[in-house]
Amino acid sequence: MRELKWATLGCGVIANQLEQALEQSGRKLYAVANRTHAKGVAFAEKYGIGKVYDEIDDVFADPDVDVIYISTPHNTHIGFLRKALAAGKHVLCEKSITLNSGELDEAIALAEANHVLLAEAMTLYHMPLYRELDRIIAGGELGKVKLIQMNFGSYKEYDMANRFFNRNLAGGAMLDIGVYALSCMRWFMSSKPDRIVSQVKAAPTGVDEQAGILLTNPDGRWPRSRCRCTRSSRSAAPSRSRTAMWRSSTIRAANAPRSTTRPARWCARSRRAIPRTRSPTRWRTWRPQSPRTRRAGPGRFRPMRPPRRSKASCTSVTRAT
Amino acid sequence: MRELKWATLGCGVIANQLEQALEQSGRKLYAVANRTHAKGVAFAEKYGIGKVYDEIDDVFADPDVDVIYISTPHNTHIGFLRKALAAGKHVLCEKSITLNSGELDEAIALAEANHVLLAEAMTLYHMPLYRELDRIIAGGELGKVKLIQMNFGSYKEYDMANRFFNRNLAGGAMLDIGVYALSCMRWFMSSKPDRIVSQVKAAPTGVDEQAGILLTNPDGRWPRSRCRCTRSSRSAAPSRSRTAMWRSSTIRAANAPRSTTRPARWCARSRRAIPRTRSPTRWRTWRPQSPRTRRAGPGRFRPMRPPRRSKASCTSVTRAT
Repeated sequence: MRELKWATLGCGVIANQLEQALEQSGRKLYAVANRTHAKGVAFAEKYGIGKVYDEIDDVFADPDVDVIYISTPHNTHIGFLRKALAAGKHVLCEKSITLNSGELDEAIALAEANHVLLAEAMTLYHMPLYRELDRIIAGGELGKVKLIQMNFGSYKEYDMANRFFNRNLAGGAMLDIGVYALSCMRWFMSSKPDRIVSQVKAAPTGVDEQAGILLTNPDGRWPRSRCRCTRSSRSAAPSRSRTAMWRSSTIRAANAPRSTTRPARWCARSRRAIPRTRSPTRWRTWRPQSPRTRRAGPGRFRPMRPPRRSKASCTSVTRAT
Repeated sequence: MRELKWATLGCGVIANQLEQALEQSGRKLYAVANRTHAKGVAFAEKYGIGKVYDEIDDVFADPDVDVIYISTPHNTHIGFLRKALAAGKHVLCEKSITLNSGELDEAIALAEANHVLLAEAMTLYHMPLYRELDRIIAGGELGKVKLIQMNFGSYKEYDMANRFFNRNLAGGAMLDIGVYALSCMRWFMSSKPDRIVSQVKAAPTGVDEQAGILLTNPDGRWPRSRCRCTRSSRSAAPSRSRTAMWRSSTIRAANAPRSTTRPARWCARSRRAIPRTRSPTRWRTWRPQSPRTRRAGPGRFRPMRPPRRSKASCTSVTRAT
């Protein structure tokens, strides 16, 4: 089977990371398309890529291109998706893949009609941390998910001229980082949420600056999950903690959802009433194994002793059964 | 000024705590009223209280009683409030003071008409921990509150015959423990929330078993606070963490809101973008001073060194300015 030829459409920070990731597995981008031709040339020279298109749209007509990686601003995605998919190219599109579900439905229909793959580059779905959590969950030890809680925020300079606050450039917290919160929650939910309520705080430009969202899905007699997310493009001290709660257990992933190297912590808690004097909690931590250890076996994480905690902040003593 | 004479209406667990608290300050309850007379007699004998009413309503007619403490089930509160306030008694009523705002408005009007005090025994409003947090907030170091997050849950046996799940006895999560979550958020909010959305999971009896709530208040050009609470009478591993976020700082109180003895932790975070490699966070902890230390000065808390944390779970290194 011949190796697929990748072209990048856009050559910003993320496109650099794509090329570097390809190089780590001994491959390269085949071609570069960019609105500013000079930047495309510089990008190609930096990485020794052989082809730069004169016009950005030329990439769609190139019969040698198999996959197009779209990393241009959100608002341009659907236009490029239409052209790429109609030209029979597979597409990996940066998040947020489209601005709304209508655009996404159109892109999916186009991909199906042209028998090509369409994927959103939502990193966390490909991280070993989340696959490991899935493995633990599938093992049944934790029971059913009862509640998922996500906080996700980032700082942006409060400059309304910045593209993050520009409505015409698809600014706002949801399309920038809220998608991480929603995707992380969706990862742990057994089905699509069917009830959604939210509150939004708008920036002066009208884009969403901060929001709280409640989600419930219909699985089973009771909703299987209850989720919330808050994200902010500027106003709150950003928090990136997330918690998933099961019948008797809690998983907390205290670091950024994209992390491949940081640990996950979880604790099992008693199903019985919690005594007033002590918390029947025992924290456990998984951390990604070193590459050498990882090669040795299928497991990506190894159990760690509970982190050292001051008595002041935690009285954890016993693990619940 | 003569000492006010207190009577308890109800003699359950909380009434015992009231009597014990009074005894710690060298005082006693004056009288006991209880639906089951024998229990009232036993309570009075236990604590050496001189007066037990034959009928529960007799307490309202006793001219010697100044204050009535109502600790009967929620659904009986409004009936007793009407009688006590109309009789010119001050009232301290256990939470939840009434089942809805209509009942509360009626009780407030009655108290005003009779020139007596009416208070809900919401413990956290009287805890040194929260007063200390108020002092820190008022100092301006943290800036304006940007987000408050509360989780509050408790386990109950999933028995629909239990009063906690009985609609006629005012069961359900909100009246039982949700009021703690809302009261804690309200403590940190500068004004009453004016926008409220929620999702509720109902128990088979129809009472609220679990819910998520989003609140926003109208202060300033932007909402000053954004709040959420989840509480569960059974279904999720109960969490009692709460977080208040300021422009540049976060306060986390990791223990039960009623605690007078457990520490509060807070961290200040940079207003600038957070570097990818390290979190510009330094945790600080306040713990209540010992009684001896507390007598020595007005402060109730003293600064502590940051809790010992494993590198795995925290890379905190520098305090932001």
